[in-house]
Amino acid sequence: IISSGICGTDKHILEGKDKVPFPAIWGHEGAGTIESIGEGVTTVKPGDKVLMFPLPECRECSSCLHPKSNFCLKESILPPTGLMLDGTSRFTCRGRKIYHLYGTSTFTEYTVVHEIAVGKIDDDAPMDTVCILSCEVPTGFGAVFNIAKVTPGSTCVVFGLGGIGSAVLMACKASGASRIIGVDIKEEKFPRARTLGVTDCLNPQKLKKPVQEVVVEMTGKGADFAFEAIGLIDTMVATLESCHPSYGVGVIIGLAPTNSQLIFDPMLLLSGRTLKGGALGSESCIPKMVTDYLQKKINIDPLITHKLPFESINKAFELLQGGHCIKIQLPFILEK
Amino acid sequence: IISSGICGTDKHILEGKDKVPFPAIWGHEGAGTIESIGEGVTTVKPGDKVLMFPLPECRECSSCLHPKSNFCLKESILPPTGLMLDGTSRFTCRGRKIYHLYGTSTFTEYTVVHEIAVGKIDDDAPMDTVCILSCEVPTGFGAVFNIAKVTPGSTCVVFGLGGIGSAVLMACKASGASRIIGVDIKEEKFPRARTLGVTDCLNPQKLKKPVQEVVVEMTGKGADFAFEAIGLIDTMVATLESCHPSYGVGVIIGLAPTNSQLIFDPMLLLSGRTLKGGALGSESCIPKMVTDYLQKKINIDPLITHKLPFESINKAFELLQGGHCIKIQLPFILEK
Ligand SMILES: NC(=O)c1ccc[n+]([C@@H]2O[C@H](COP(=O)([O-])OP(=O)(O)OC[C@H]3O[C@@H](n4cnc5c(N)ncnc54)[C@H](O)[C@@H]3O)[C@@H](O)[C@H]2O)c1
Ligand SMILES: NC(=O)c1ccc[n+]([C@@H]2O[C@H](COP(=O)([O-])OP(=O)(O)OC[C@H]3O[C@@H](n4cnc5c(N)ncnc54)[C@H](O)[C@@H]3O)[C@@H](O)[C@H]2O)c1
Ligand SMILES: [Zn+2]
Ligand SMILES: [Zn+2]
Ligand SMILES: [Zn+2]
Ligand SMILES: [Zn+2]
Repeated sequence: IISSGICGTDKHILEGKDKVPFPAIWGHEGAGTIESIGEGVTTVKPGDKVLMFPLPECRECSSCLHPKSNFCLKESILPPTGLMLDGTSRFTCRGRKIYHLYGTSTFTEYTVVHEIAVGKIDDDAPMDTVCILSCEVPTGFGAVFNIAKVTPGSTCVVFGLGGIGSAVLMACKASGASRIIGVDIKEEKFPRARTLGVTDCLNPQKLKKPVQEVVVEMTGKGADFAFEAIGLIDTMVATLESCHPSYGVGVIIGLAPTNSQLIFDPMLLLSGRTLKGGALGSESCIPKMVTDYLQKKINIDPLITHKLPFESINKAFELLQGGHCIKIQLPFILEK
Repeated sequence: IISSGICGTDKHILEGKDKVPFPAIWGHEGAGTIESIGEGVTTVKPGDKVLMFPLPECRECSSCLHPKSNFCLKESILPPTGLMLDGTSRFTCRGRKIYHLYGTSTFTEYTVVHEIAVGKIDDDAPMDTVCILSCEVPTGFGAVFNIAKVTPGSTCVVFGLGGIGSAVLMACKASGASRIIGVDIKEEKFPRARTLGVTDCLNPQKLKKPVQEVVVEMTGKGADFAFEAIGLIDTMVATLESCHPSYGVGVIIGLAPTNSQLIFDPMLLLSGRTLKGGALGSESCIPKMVTDYLQKKINIDPLITHKLPFESINKAFELLQGGHCIKIQLPFILEK
């Protein structure tokens, strides 16, 4: 592994909100070089630059074969098994079994992944930047382009302006949304969000009424599309309630705490709202996104705010809690 | 009003599960003749045969103007106001105000409705049959054709094989679904459901595990489309859980009890499930459906199992609770 990103999911795991098997090597957003391959591996060879796929696509199961789906049934996310596809772990520490995370485990110099969990990328890809194409960018873009299918001229609301939310709003803007309302409790996130396309910023803690009511008033009757990129039950309900009653589409991207319950009046749906969820975009498109980035068709640079050497990972988690950070890269060797 | 149908919603109201203002004249599925019109009314004239629209379309609001929506913002369903669009009631009894229901009120010989709440139909329409084109048929067809967009070869599950469920499964069959699983606790409903297209019948009370688990096993991983046409929270959750994790679409048609809460783990959505709701189809298409019925392009006759004179309405409610009834018509004068 040459470089990893920290994602909100890692934060949830650290806080114990999302339960994964322990002890484990975390990290699921990473760029690396193939050191060696197992028998029968054909799609990559030693020396290849690759990105990790926390949600690989086997291209054989009913999900992979379905035109509208990307959630391969071979995933190890729901629930997190911490194991390889064959049910084994390949890490030990002093004889003790160490679990994987989402079939990737990138907070380590060397990892073992299934062939389908990596994709070869261009040789000239800058490894300390492209690692966010492993999770953050495809997740946000996938939610907008594939799941919500944001339409030109539409009004969008994005709950959470961290890494995922920022990728979401870039994609909303690219889809031609004419109004993008950004919601976050850290106002330090607002200036950067505005440069990425947000037209209105709301801090729920400074409002006199629930943020969804404010969104409904601002938009007449509700937004066309609303995205939850925080991972809290309350903001998931607010996302649904922010949508136009008869055609609004709410998309849940945030990971709710393990075993939590979404609770809302089903009448919210009866008038025609849609509630969807989605994970990680289309992993098979990731190598193409690297090429698009190199060809300047997409610009992911504004999504990276900090770079710290991997040893400073604890400091990185602190920074992510703060208001000024969108995404932190953790290269093993800090490039100049 | 020449003829009314009883719908599951009327049953909920009778049982006190769905709260509406009282005292009121119920009934929202009805066929009648225009007796007189108010000033400025242009789309119907005395003598016209019409169907009632419990969800009229003003064709001016953001919902009516949106290509994917039918839930006109002028509706009086969520919540039920019991009033005309202008905020008044037009019924009294011994000087006391009587409320309307969903802008229609069909359990009466004479009613007062807004111009947009009726649509002229063909002069030769058989009034005691077509009244189910007021609610039951467009609701079921709309859920399948417009909301779920059932695809050929797909697997569908229909929870509830009453009036709405029967219309749903007819539409699933017409959409080319290759497998339709019908779920009901009244097994007397199964033979008729089979003639309408159901391929497998399940009685949850006779199963050793939750019905959604059985559906998932039967279908490999879950159905493509699932419909709730009962109006219970538990079966709404079962509907979502019956869907394929990465591309399943659950559609809630049943009316949940007033102020109830849908409760489920949001991880059910994260893998890619979609949860939608919908009401009453596209009212503006109803007169066309009457013509289609007269031209034998659609056959709604199998949906009507009983005809009773209006005076027997209490008996009709009893019958609807039983197992042999799909839909009861209540003509004011029983045609021979
Ligand atoms: N579905 C997927 O495939 C997928 C992939 C990656 C991450 N995620 C999830 O997406 C969510 C966001 O991840 P991220 O990397 O952007 O995290 P992040 O920490 O960078 O961003 C979260 C943002 O939410 C804001 N926030 C926190 N509480 C809030 C509240 N009550 N109201 C408004 N804003 C609030 C924070 O200030 C922060 O800006 C997490 O739940 C993560 O687990 C899902
Ligand atoms: N969304 C709309 O526009 C709309 C329009 C009309 C009706 N509705 C609602 O649709 C629902 C169905 O209406 P209907 O007219 O078909 O009613 P119905 O009474 O004819 O049918 C309900 C069916 O559900 C079955 N059932 C009851 N409990 C069950 C359980 N626990 N498991 C399985 N089956 C069960 C009954 O045996 C019956 O066959 C109601 O909730 C009604 O309010 C909604
Ligand atoms: Zn991530
Ligand atoms: Zn697969
Ligand atoms: Zn009805
Ligand atoms: Zn309207």
